[in-house]
Amino acid sequence: MTFNVKIIASLLGILLIINGIFMLLCIPVALIYQEGGLLPLVLSSAISGGVGLSLWLYNRNASDKTLGKREGYLIVTLGWLIMSLAGTLPYLLSGTIPSFTNAFFETISGYTTTGASILNDIESLPKGILLWRSLTQWIGGMGIIVLAVAVLPLLGIGGMQLFVAEAPGLKPDKLQPRITETAKRLWFIYVGLTFVEFVLLQLAGMNTFDALNHGLTTMATGGFSTKQASVAHFDSPLIQYIIIAFMFIAGTNFTLTYFGFKGDFKKIWRNEEFRVYAIGVLVLGLLVSIGVFAATDLGYEEAFRDSLFQVTALITTTGFVSADYTSWDPALTIICFMLMFVGASAGSTAGGVKIVRHLLLLKNGILELKRQIHPAAIIPVRLNNKAVSQDITYNVLAFIMIYLTIYVLSTFIMGLIGVDFTTALGSVATSLGNIGPGLGTVGPMDNFAHLPAVGKWFLSFLMLLGRLELFTVLILLTPYFWKRN
Amino acid sequence: MTFNVKIIASLLGILLIINGIFMLLCIPVALIYQEGGLLPLVLSSAISGGVGLSLWLYNRNASDKTLGKREGYLIVTLGWLIMSLAGTLPYLLSGTIPSFTNAFFETISGYTTTGASILNDIESLPKGILLWRSLTQWIGGMGIIVLAVAVLPLLGIGGMQLFVAEAPGLKPDKLQPRITETAKRLWFIYVGLTFVEFVLLQLAGMNTFDALNHGLTTMATGGFSTKQASVAHFDSPLIQYIIIAFMFIAGTNFTLTYFGFKGDFKKIWRNEEFRVYAIGVLVLGLLVSIGVFAATDLGYEEAFRDSLFQVTALITTTGFVSADYTSWDPALTIICFMLMFVGASAGSTAGGVKIVRHLLLLKNGILELKRQIHPAAIIPVRLNNKAVSQDITYNVLAFIMIYLTIYVLSTFIMGLIGVDFTTALGSVATSLGNIGPGLGTVGPMDNFAHLPAVGKWFLSFLMLLGRLELFTVLILLTPYFWKRN
Repeated sequence: MTFNVKIIASLLGILLIINGIFMLLCIPVALIYQEGGLLPLVLSSAISGGVGLSLWLYNRNASDKTLGKREGYLIVTLGWLIMSLAGTLPYLLSGTIPSFTNAFFETISGYTTTGASILNDIESLPKGILLWRSLTQWIGGMGIIVLAVAVLPLLGIGGMQLFVAEAPGLKPDKLQPRITETAKRLWFIYVGLTFVEFVLLQLAGMNTFDALNHGLTTMATGGFSTKQASVAHFDSPLIQYIIIAFMFIAGTNFTLTYFGFKGDFKKIWRNEEFRVYAIGVLVLGLLVSIGVFAATDLGYEEAFRDSLFQVTALITTTGFVSADYTSWDPALTIICFMLMFVGASAGSTAGGVKIVRHLLLLKNGILELKRQIHPAAIIPVRLNNKAVSQDITYNVLAFIMIYLTIYVLSTFIMGLIGVDFTTALGSVATSLGNIGPGLGTVGPMDNFAHLPAVGKWFLSFLMLLGRLELFTVLILLTPYFWKRN
Repeated sequence: MTFNVKIIASLLGILLIINGIFMLLCIPVALIYQEGGLLPLVLSSAISGGVGLSLWLYNRNASDKTLGKREGYLIVTLGWLIMSLAGTLPYLLSGTIPSFTNAFFETISGYTTTGASILNDIESLPKGILLWRSLTQWIGGMGIIVLAVAVLPLLGIGGMQLFVAEAPGLKPDKLQPRITETAKRLWFIYVGLTFVEFVLLQLAGMNTFDALNHGLTTMATGGFSTKQASVAHFDSPLIQYIIIAFMFIAGTNFTLTYFGFKGDFKKIWRNEEFRVYAIGVLVLGLLVSIGVFAATDLGYEEAFRDSLFQVTALITTTGFVSADYTSWDPALTIICFMLMFVGASAGSTAGGVKIVRHLLLLKNGILELKRQIHPAAIIPVRLNNKAVSQDITYNVLAFIMIYLTIYVLSTFIMGLIGVDFTTALGSVATSLGNIGPGLGTVGPMDNFAHLPAVGKWFLSFLMLLGRLELFTVLILLTPYFWKRN
């Protein structure tokens, strides 16, 4: 079958140009702090931008008339890959991460907003390079908003057409007008919220550089920190509460946040997924805090803060760390492990399964028992007071099953690669769910540096798979994709 | 709503009478070995048979005209419960298991053919009581065959109507004629195979008592052994290979075995589930044996035998132990853990998810990707060259999701009860899947005695839930069941 290769190439070119422009943004920081990384950043920007410009110029006469679903799948997957390749340049050229495997792991962990790191001594990196590291997450988050709100619903991935049905956009058949329209509206919110957090963190006492980086990686639900100890480094309660609040906002469907900006709070609260999300975070935070209070010597406020922080960080798949959740108590470790499978709201920057899918699953499970008793009746699942079509329910069930199947097989593969059981369980959960810290030797106080190279490549693949809602990548691996009808 | 209480009571009465008769069978053994347990067995038999007889006599004029689906659900769940209650009598009256919690755990572990035990020194029990212990599994296995082949398909549980569609029985609307007809045919095979294994084990050098008990618990895929060290106690390769063969047969759909008895082997091999089962056991056995050979000092034959034994024991949910699979290697432990979720064939005595459901799930997952590309096309899953209706596929997906949801929640509850992460993962997997040994402190070399009482009750509930294909029990917990239409 034939693809519209020219349009694919020109769009990938544009992505590389964007990459190059964002690299430029790191140059002032490198100039101010004079810690090195200046030349590597300039070079990286030139290479990424140059290659992108050539690709675009050479293919800009491409017609977008034939930009269809198949091209869509390819562009999304290739886009994330090419960005992750180009994004390694600042690390490699500056020598801060000399190994290509490690540099790729760190970059794709950024662009997929995962936040798993191979760095052993984050503070030793030049600030220009650290800003680049945070920016990969911020760019990734931007990409995800467009993907979740505009592209995936059109491609019909995993029920996304339903979850973001209230998206404030047009519904044309072609991708580009919708992307442009939605991007304008939602990026404005994304940029605005990042800026507000940046200001608030400074007011709370964080220095400008750290506030900027944490703002960028919070809104992306990424979780890269400029400190080896992550947010635990800042033992100011105010800073931690601010980050909790913004992680929560970042895990909210951006189309709902958009209505919030317009003052329509009723619409937010009427959304079932949001209600479950908000109440869930609060209830779980309280439950865990009781456990932490009982299991540790912490005072009540600190137990509550640490608990709410970790619950929010894991549910929203941000993966910031304010306390070692694996040291609390076995039962609390299990809760934290399970939270890795939640994944906040659809249409947010969070990864993982997403609450709305769990909700559909749960409702459908209960109704299946009802169907068992009344086999003749047609009993659809209802969400936000609307009946959900059987096709979508079906697709959501398939999504979750494929997610779990991949989870199980991948844990096994990590075992074969030679990591212990707990580390295998944790590293796969955190990579597939785009969270960051895992369990065992990749726990919240550790990093991924010690894993064998093949394990790093495998986890990188899982990050991409999880980030692109599985189907986008998996479809490329089927013969159906490559056959013309 | 009103139930036909009299018919329910009379059928439960018959079950208790059966219980009493089987207890009588242990009396000769108690007489021969003179190790005690005689009077407790006589008393237990009298109590169970007496109560059963009164229930039956008092209600035998009940009309079975109104025996419907709702009564079916109740009878199945209550039947297993009442048998498990009555089955504790020999343990309690003989004082071999003085605690009611432990006695109930051991009995329901028997009737559900799980094989998890709280006994610390099995060899010290009188042989009459040990035979009763093995018989609970054998009776449970008989019940399961009827349930899987005759009752559950009528109740429409988890796709069972499809998997045993080739059952050699009539399809009347009412339960009883079909049960009687099917029971006659399949119990003959069940009894016959048990007897053949009993003879073969003796020829291979096992003593009569051990051969009888292992015959009973193999065919039930139960896994209770008369030895604390389970089958590892018998280091005869021949004995172990015989048990492997019969575990494999017990994990095969009994309606297929019926065709095998009639010489129609083509029909067996044409069955997709059987092919996956047979090839799967062999390939996994070989794979694991390579791993065991590499990770231990064992010779090739022993590595192969131990591996094939454990793979078969876990897939068929028998749970016999010939080697400590948790001591081999992390990767092999993970494989063994995953095997706990397989569950051999539908229509066998095996518990767990069952291969045919995994097969449907896998096929549907791949086709879902195809549907993604061709959203307008109707693409049904095919099994044994027939299209599977969407209702059944849906039901199977829901079954697996509910299974996993219960698994996850239960692991969490076990964590709350205070066991460590690995033990929680293993104890729930083995109870829900009706296997026997787990991981961690309930591993193949350990037992369940040390768990807190609340943990034992909870795992007992999971055994029942898993054994009755979830829905049968869960339906009773919904309001839909108790409301008339």
